[in-house]
Amino acid sequence: MTSGDTVTTFIRALELKDFGTACSLITDDCEYHNVPFAKVHGPEGLRSVLEPFLDRCGGVDWVVHHQVESGDVVMNERTDRFEMSGRWAELRVAGLFVLRDGKIAVWRDYFDQAQFTQAVSG
Amino acid sequence: MTSGDTVTTFIRALELKDFGTACSLITDDCEYHNVPFAKVHGPEGLRSVLEPFLDRCGGVDWVVHHQVESGDVVMNERTDRFEMSGRWAELRVAGLFVLRDGKIAVWRDYFDQAQFTQAVSG
Repeated sequence: MTSGDTVTTFIRALELKDFGTACSLITDDCEYHNVPFAKVHGPEGLRSVLEPFLDRCGGVDWVVHHQVESGDVVMNERTDRFEMSGRWAELRVAGLFVLRDGKIAVWRDYFDQAQFTQAVSG
Repeated sequence: MTSGDTVTTFIRALELKDFGTACSLITDDCEYHNVPFAKVHGPEGLRSVLEPFLDRCGGVDWVVHHQVESGDVVMNERTDRFEMSGRWAELRVAGLFVLRDGKIAVWRDYFDQAQFTQAVSG
């Protein structure tokens, strides 16, 4: 798998709320940073941020518009879609992933906090 | 020049406030979108957004942490630094560039609007 394949597999796992697979693809010290918010680390940090949130969602659909990679670095432009209370909330995101030994060691997502708040509050 | 080289040259031109060079590197219909704000088009649109803003700055220093490219698509992670009123404001940004015939046809920057407002207001 290339770095990009790993990121694609990771995102598909999150769409399925399959945290076992997702956590197997990140390093123990993985830095996960939604840049407008605080950063967390490792599988526990990832779960602490995403699991309660995705549990509130019906479908999860992250549309990747562009993805480019070079060696251990992958970036993508996405529309992250979350089905909440019967409607789809959408957030425009650009993500950076840096891999180490085939696992994701850094994941930073860039987006507008106000757009996120508006999207999830309907 | 690769697509990445063109983006690097474009960013260097903006750091120098050299809008002649910058505008020569974008298409006439270039879509420039600071995603939290409205999008503009073409050299005039680019100038209308950036020229008054950069004129307020002393130094302009856009630090590229990562840049990856594939064919016509370039993405980078940056800290855009602006010297304003004797201090340096910093904004964390992820950017997407799509080229057509060697010129930038799409530029979308992802960042947090609140962080931008806070940075430039000190």
